Amino acid sequence: MDSRNGPEAPQESNVKSFFNSAPPLRDGDLICNKLKEFMDRISLSSENGSPVRVVCVTSGGTTVPLEQRCVRYIDNFSSGHRGAASTEYFVKAGYAVIFVYRRGSCQPYCRYLPQDSFLEFFDLTEDSTIQVYCILQVCQSHATMVKKAIRDYRKAVEEGLLLKIPFTTIFEYLQILQMVAKSMSWTATRGMFYLAAAVSDFYVPWESMAEHKIQSAAGPLDMRLTQVPKMLSVLRKEWAPSAFCISFKLETDPGILLQKADMAMRKYGMHVVVANELATYKEEVIIVTKGRRTAVRRHNKETDLEEQLVYLLDEMHYEYIKQGGA
Amino acid sequence: MDSRNGPEAPQESNVKSFFNSAPPLRDGDLICNKLKEFMDRISLSSENGSPVRVVCVTSGGTTVPLEQRCVRYIDNFSSGHRGAASTEYFVKAGYAVIFVYRRGSCQPYCRYLPQDSFLEFFDLTEDSTIQVYCILQVCQSHATMVKKAIRDYRKAVEEGLLLKIPFTTIFEYLQILQMVAKSMSWTATRGMFYLAAAVSDFYVPWESMAEHKIQSAAGPLDMRLTQVPKMLSVLRKEWAPSAFCISFKLETDPGILLQKADMAMRKYGMHVVVANELATYKEEVIIVTKGRRTAVRRHNKETDLEEQLVYLLDEMHYEYIKQGGA
Repeated sequence: MDSRNGPEAPQESNVKSFFNSAPPLRDGDLICNKLKEFMDRISLSSENGSPVRVVCVTSGGTTVPLEQRCVRYIDNFSSGHRGAASTEYFVKAGYAVIFVYRRGSCQPYCRYLPQDSFLEFFDLTEDSTIQVYCILQVCQSHATMVKKAIRDYRKAVEEGLLLKIPFTTIFEYLQILQMVAKSMSWTATRGMFYLAAAVSDFYVPWESMAEHKIQSAAGPLDMRLTQVPKMLSVLRKEWAPSAFCISFKLETDPGILLQKADMAMRKYGMHVVVANELATYKEEVIIVTKGRRTAVRRHNKETDLEEQLVYLLDEMHYEYIKQGGA
Repeated sequence: MDSRNGPEAPQESNVKSFFNSAPPLRDGDLICNKLKEFMDRISLSSENGSPVRVVCVTSGGTTVPLEQRCVRYIDNFSSGHRGAASTEYFVKAGYAVIFVYRRGSCQPYCRYLPQDSFLEFFDLTEDSTIQVYCILQVCQSHATMVKKAIRDYRKAVEEGLLLKIPFTTIFEYLQILQMVAKSMSWTATRGMFYLAAAVSDFYVPWESMAEHKIQSAAGPLDMRLTQVPKMLSVLRKEWAPSAFCISFKLETDPGILLQKADMAMRKYGMHVVVANELATYKEEVIIVTKGRRTAVRRHNKETDLEEQLVYLLDEMHYEYIKQGGA
């Protein structure tokens, strides 16, 4: 790797102090086992004769607790639609997908459905005509979509191509991301990180956090938030040095967007930065790579921007693997 | 009203500056019209021969935007279960209910259902056996509950006893509360406010808010949050001086809970403060009134604490009306 263009060394002491200050991950062992099972199964699969490619898609916003017994927290806006839609197209393109999502955010295969849990409650039995009739009764316009969504979802789950892991806080998110990265290390260049989650830039270290609810009696509240260490560097440098890495840059001010995307690419050694603006992110993004910018626009209301986005990244990833990760 | 026990005068300049700093309420006219229609209908109804009583139930947490084009915000934890459950029991007790709730929080009549929108998508047609059969197919264990929930919900809506108004931010919440209070003024002592929403204590005034996403380049972030003026006083003193007012006090530290509940009652002139502790709020609350504390405990897992709570408040409200609001 060219060191001039490589990621900057993350400040190790900041990284250490972030993880030291994080509360232990609930269900850490369970997640670890699930990842192991998933990887074991995937390692036996193939994609057109080649070993299968694996992508970790992160989605939705992280929270920053302001109190240990959490009543108040800072949240980042993100519906999770981009991550959920992209997951569907990655599965369709033949990837095995680890979908790391914020609890309650948008889920793959039911972005257009009234509610995600429909998937859990309906089952296409052999006598499926009754089910379909029932759904038709319920809501004519959704019937075809519901049917297709249930089929696609079941297929992805049955083929073992989709693993979903939820998070809420910034602490959980980064601990899980580290675990996923470690479990994917065997995929080397066939691994991809598609980091669409909206991750907090600031946090309150656990030990300096108020144990109880902050009291409001005494005038204004002054808060000092610590910067979250730039884990993109750590991911690229330590956790997943061979994987193909894509991060997202969202800004509300178009004047600084591309400049910040370029900077993120250089600073964190990303292979691709997808630049999007809050006002237009559903209609257009710009794929920023070393020395190149490609605009991707949604064709019309009936198509997903993510279809084209994933198609282009899929191609770039193939090229990356062929070149041995250069 | 005895001035010694009456609410403290709210600091008028703070209240003014809060409302002046609030962005205009989207759909303000629509909400206003809905309230008018609801009140017109209610004013013609009766409850066992007497004019109907009206309760405004607020539910869920408010957010505090940190940026004008909001990416980040501070949120208050609240599932909205208490407000949703209480709404059901108020309707059952004969009240007309205005349910002011946080978007996405728990909804009345579907607290135990997989998803609220079930209510919107299923319809009990004349040929209801097919529908029920369909639901049975979907999920045996939920069938009876789903059926009952749909019936109760439709009944409340058809009888015009339930109006739902959503909010997200602290600005929306307080603007809506003011509108509801004004629209309820004709109910005088027959009006009740059951303020179960978890309202932020601090906010960032709109005009001092960053327009764009806060940048993370330069070290830690210092934030100064302004105290939200104590609107409970304003509600009691100006918006709804005759209504029966119940507020909630949630603390994580049991050592200060009752003392804070007493203080809230005196300071804001509440008729009742319901004190609850974060760790046990589903199992026990304490009803604090002038000179009296009554513990309310949930009988068992199959019952709702809110059933007893609403029963007691209903009795107290009858007494209050009989005494002419003393």
